[in-house]
Amino acid sequence: MSFSDQADRTLELLSLTPGWHRLRDLRQDCDDETVTAIVGEAANFAEGVLAPLNGVGDRAGAQVVDGRVRTPEGFAAAFKQYAEAGWLGMDVPEKFGGQAVPLTLHAACASLFERGCVALMMAAGSTRAAAHLLAEAADEETAAGWVPKLSSGEWAATICISEPEAGSDVGRLRTKAELRGGGWFVTGQKIWISFGDHDMAERIGHCLLARTNDQPGTRGISLFLVPNLIDGKPNGVSVDRIEEKMGLHGSPTCAMRFENAGAVMLGQEGRGLPQLFTMIELMRLLTGCQGLGIASAAAAIAEDYARERRQGGRPDQPPVPIVTHPDVERQLYEIRSSTEILRAAILELATVMDLARLGTEPGLEDFTGWMLPLVKNFGAEAGFNAANAAIQVLGGVGYTKDWPLEQHLRDSRIMAIYEGTTGMQALDFLTRRLWRDEGRGSALFLEKARDEIDAYMSEHPAASDAVLRILDGFEALSGRMTAMQGDPDAALYRADAYMRAAWTAVSAWMALRISETRAVNGLAAQFAFHCARCD
Amino acid sequence: MSFSDQADRTLELLSLTPGWHRLRDLRQDCDDETVTAIVGEAANFAEGVLAPLNGVGDRAGAQVVDGRVRTPEGFAAAFKQYAEAGWLGMDVPEKFGGQAVPLTLHAACASLFERGCVALMMAAGSTRAAAHLLAEAADEETAAGWVPKLSSGEWAATICISEPEAGSDVGRLRTKAELRGGGWFVTGQKIWISFGDHDMAERIGHCLLARTNDQPGTRGISLFLVPNLIDGKPNGVSVDRIEEKMGLHGSPTCAMRFENAGAVMLGQEGRGLPQLFTMIELMRLLTGCQGLGIASAAAAIAEDYARERRQGGRPDQPPVPIVTHPDVERQLYEIRSSTEILRAAILELATVMDLARLGTEPGLEDFTGWMLPLVKNFGAEAGFNAANAAIQVLGGVGYTKDWPLEQHLRDSRIMAIYEGTTGMQALDFLTRRLWRDEGRGSALFLEKARDEIDAYMSEHPAASDAVLRILDGFEALSGRMTAMQGDPDAALYRADAYMRAAWTAVSAWMALRISETRAVNGLAAQFAFHCARCD
Repeated sequence: MSFSDQADRTLELLSLTPGWHRLRDLRQDCDDETVTAIVGEAANFAEGVLAPLNGVGDRAGAQVVDGRVRTPEGFAAAFKQYAEAGWLGMDVPEKFGGQAVPLTLHAACASLFERGCVALMMAAGSTRAAAHLLAEAADEETAAGWVPKLSSGEWAATICISEPEAGSDVGRLRTKAELRGGGWFVTGQKIWISFGDHDMAERIGHCLLARTNDQPGTRGISLFLVPNLIDGKPNGVSVDRIEEKMGLHGSPTCAMRFENAGAVMLGQEGRGLPQLFTMIELMRLLTGCQGLGIASAAAAIAEDYARERRQGGRPDQPPVPIVTHPDVERQLYEIRSSTEILRAAILELATVMDLARLGTEPGLEDFTGWMLPLVKNFGAEAGFNAANAAIQVLGGVGYTKDWPLEQHLRDSRIMAIYEGTTGMQALDFLTRRLWRDEGRGSALFLEKARDEIDAYMSEHPAASDAVLRILDGFEALSGRMTAMQGDPDAALYRADAYMRAAWTAVSAWMALRISETRAVNGLAAQFAFHCARCD
Repeated sequence: MSFSDQADRTLELLSLTPGWHRLRDLRQDCDDETVTAIVGEAANFAEGVLAPLNGVGDRAGAQVVDGRVRTPEGFAAAFKQYAEAGWLGMDVPEKFGGQAVPLTLHAACASLFERGCVALMMAAGSTRAAAHLLAEAADEETAAGWVPKLSSGEWAATICISEPEAGSDVGRLRTKAELRGGGWFVTGQKIWISFGDHDMAERIGHCLLARTNDQPGTRGISLFLVPNLIDGKPNGVSVDRIEEKMGLHGSPTCAMRFENAGAVMLGQEGRGLPQLFTMIELMRLLTGCQGLGIASAAAAIAEDYARERRQGGRPDQPPVPIVTHPDVERQLYEIRSSTEILRAAILELATVMDLARLGTEPGLEDFTGWMLPLVKNFGAEAGFNAANAAIQVLGGVGYTKDWPLEQHLRDSRIMAIYEGTTGMQALDFLTRRLWRDEGRGSALFLEKARDEIDAYMSEHPAASDAVLRILDGFEALSGRMTAMQGDPDAALYRADAYMRAAWTAVSAWMALRISETRAVNGLAAQFAFHCARCD
C-alpha cells in the first residue's frame, strides 16, 4: 500500500465511520472534495518530503554541539516546509492563524506524516498540541503572542512533566515555581523532553509542570509556559544531555535544567495537571497515529516483498512468489487486518472527539475518555507488532539495515512507554473509566457498537452474532471488574488483561465495520483468552 | 537472579527432570558433585569473562579490515580462554580431545554462556557443532586432523547453507562442487555465514552444502568441509562483506565467495542435507539456550530494578518499590514463569536427546524430533519477549543504552529467523513430525506427560486436571490436523497456530513439573486461543 493508497484507504474508512457523516452535516468545510484534496496532499508531502529523512535521521541522530542540540541534516528545512504548507496549524483555531479543520482530518493526515518520519514529527506533535493548550489556557496576550508563532513553525514547544524521581508518579515532582515581583520563576530538572532543544525554530516554549505549594500529590502542581529566550536573551533553560536510545535517534530526548527561568502561569494555580490534559490527550491520540503510521509502512514493505521474492514451490519448477505460501499469506493477513482495524478505530475516536467538541450530544466525553487509552496503547503496540511481523516475512534481510523495518521496530518500541505506559493506561482504564465514571464510557461503547451491528446482521449474520457475543462477554466482564473494587490489588493485577479484552471487543466491532469478517473468529478466541486472564 | 542463582536454579530443575535421573544411572560421570562443580564454574566464567564483553561487542561490532574480519577487542582472548578451560570441547568425544559430558550438561552451561555474550558464543556454537559433525561424518584422517583442533579452539568452523537465491528453500542452491584429479573443488556464493571469517583462530573450516549433480531439490546436494587455508595457503575463500544488522554486532554475518576452493566431502554424495542435520540439530537446541540466556538476563534486570526503583504509593508517604504495584508484579511473574518453563523444557529435551544417543529405549528420536522445533522457536521467542517485557518494567530508561535490555532485544530478534524461521519450524512440525512420522512424537509426548502428571495429582489436583484437559485437547487437535492432509493449503495456513498449541501444551506440562501451578490457567486460555485459530 503506497502513501497514495493509504490516503485512499483512509477516505474509504472515513466513509464507513458513522460519526464522520454526522460531522460532515455539522461542518460545511468537510465536503468530499476538500477532504480528498487535503488527505491526498498529506500523502504527497509525507512521501516526498518526510519519508526521505527517516533513514537519515536514524543514522545521523541528533547531537549536542556547544550546549545546543543539532538536528539531522534536512530536518530544519522539512519542518519549515511542513509549517509553511499549513500542516502544523491545520487544526489550530483560525483566529490564531490556523485552519481549524476537524481533529479527524488531522488524525487522517497525521498517520501519513508519521509513516514518513516519526522522529521529525515529534517536534510537530508537541508544538501543535501546545498551540491548542495555549489557545485554551493562556492569558490573552500570551496566546496572541505564541499561538500564531507556533502554528507557523517559527517557534516550537515541548511538554515537560517527568523528573528523575517523578516519572509515572507525577505528584512527586520537585521542580519549583516561585512568585517574585509579580513574575513566576522556575527552577528544577526535567527529563525525557522530546525536542527540548533544537535548531529548527527561533524560540522554544516549554509547557511545564512545577510545584507552587506543598500540598501532597498533584494538588500543589501548576502549569507554566517557560520560553528558552525572553526578548532574545537566555532565560535560564539549558540541556544537560540527550539520551542514547534504542531508536528514534532523530528526535533528541533531552534532560533539561531550569534555573530561575521566567515563566507564565497557564490556567489556575494547583490545577496544572488537569489543565495539561488538553495537550496530553492530543498527544495520546497522536501516539495511536504514530503506531498506525509504522504499521502501514511495515505492512506495505512486507506485502511488496512477498510479491517480489521467489522461493520454494516444486523443485522442478521456477520458484514461486512467497506470497503464495499459506503461512506467509497468514502472516500478511494478520499484519493487514490489525492495521486496518487500528485505522478504523482511530477515525472512530477522532470523529467522536470532534462531535464532543461541537457539544451537540451530551456524554460523548465519556466515550472518548474510554477509547483514548485503548487507541494510545494498542496503536503503539500495533506499530511495534507490525514491524516485528514484517521483519519475519522478510527473514534475514528484514534484520539488516538494508531495509527500514528494523528501524521501525526500534523507533516504535518507545510508543507504549511515553505519553503514559501500558501500565498507566490500564490503571486509567480500570480505575477512572470504569470505576470513577461508573462505566458510562463502556456503556456508551456497547450501545454504539450494538446499534451499528444491527445494520450488518443481514449481510454478515454469523460474524455479527459472534461480535454481539463478544460485546455481551465484555459487559459481563466489566461487571465482574466493577465488583472487584473492594479488592483493588486483585483488580489492578488484572487491569492489563481487562484493557486488552476491551481493545479486542473494539477490534471486533471495527472488523465488522470494515468487513474484515475473517478476523472475527480469531478476535473471539483472543477475547476469551483475556477474559480468562481476568479470572 | 545472578549467574550463580541461575546455576543453582538449573541444578534444581535438573533434579526435577525424570530423564536426568535415568541418565545419571547410566553415566557414572554425572554424579551430583561433578555436575554442581561444572555448572557453577560455567556461571563464574560467563559472569567473569563473557558478560563484560557483551556491551563492548555491540558498540564496536565486527569490521572488515583489508579483506579480513576483525572482531571486537577482547573477543579473541576470551574465545581462547573459553576453549582452554575446556568449554568448547566439553561434549566432544574423548578420543578427539573432548570431555564427552552429556548434551544436557552442555545445554545447562550454554544457557549461562549465552546470557554472558551471545555474539561471541556464535563462534563457539558453530565450531563445536562442526566438531560433532566431523567426528561423525568425516573420513578418519580429516576427523583426526580437525576435531581436536576445533575442540581446542585453535581452529574454528562455520555452517554454510544459504545463498542469495536459496534461503529457506535449500534445494535451489547453486554453489557447485566438481571432482578434478581426485579432489573436490567448490565454487559459489554463500550468505548469512556467522563468523565466516575472523581473527580468533588460525584456520577456519566451512561445513558447506554444494551441488554435485543436477538432480532437482536436495538430492543433488552434498556436504563438504572447505578450509580457508590449505597448508597455510589461501584456498579461494573470501569475504565479500559483512551485513549491517539490527543487533548481534559482535558476530560478523558474512557474505562469502568460494572460487575453486579445495574441499573434502563429508558423508555420502547426494546426502548432504540429511548429514548436515547433525550440526543443525545441535545449533537449533543451542538457539533455545540463547533465548533462555537472554530471558534469564532480562528477568534478572527487571526484578532487580523493580525492587530498587521507588515510585507511587500514598502521596503523603515515601514512594514504594515498584515491585509492590500489582501490575508490575504481574509483568515480572509473566517474564519469570515463561523463562522457567523454557528452562525446564530445554533440560527435558536435552536429557531425552542424551538417552536417545545411549540407545537404551527405542523411539526416543521421535520425541526429540518433535520437541526440537518447539524449543528452537519458542526459546527464540521467549528471549525476545522477555527482553521486550523487561524494557516495559523499566519504562523510559529501559529504552536507553544505559541498560543492556535494548541490546538484548536487538540481539534476540534474529533468533526466530536463523537456524530455520518460525515458518520453517511450523512446516517441519506439521508435515514431518505429525504427518510423515504419523504422530509418533506427539503420542510419546502425551504418554510421557500423562504418566508424569499422575504423580502431581495428589499435591496439585486442580492444576493437574487442567493440564490433562489441555493434553486431551492437543490430542484432539492433532487428530483434526492429521485429517487435514487432504487440504494441505488449509493445513499449512494453520501450522503456526498448531505449533503454538503444542508449545502451550508442553509449557503446561513443564509448569506442573516445576510447581508453577499459578501459570496453568493462563496457559489453558492460551491453548484454547491457538486451538480456535486452527478451526
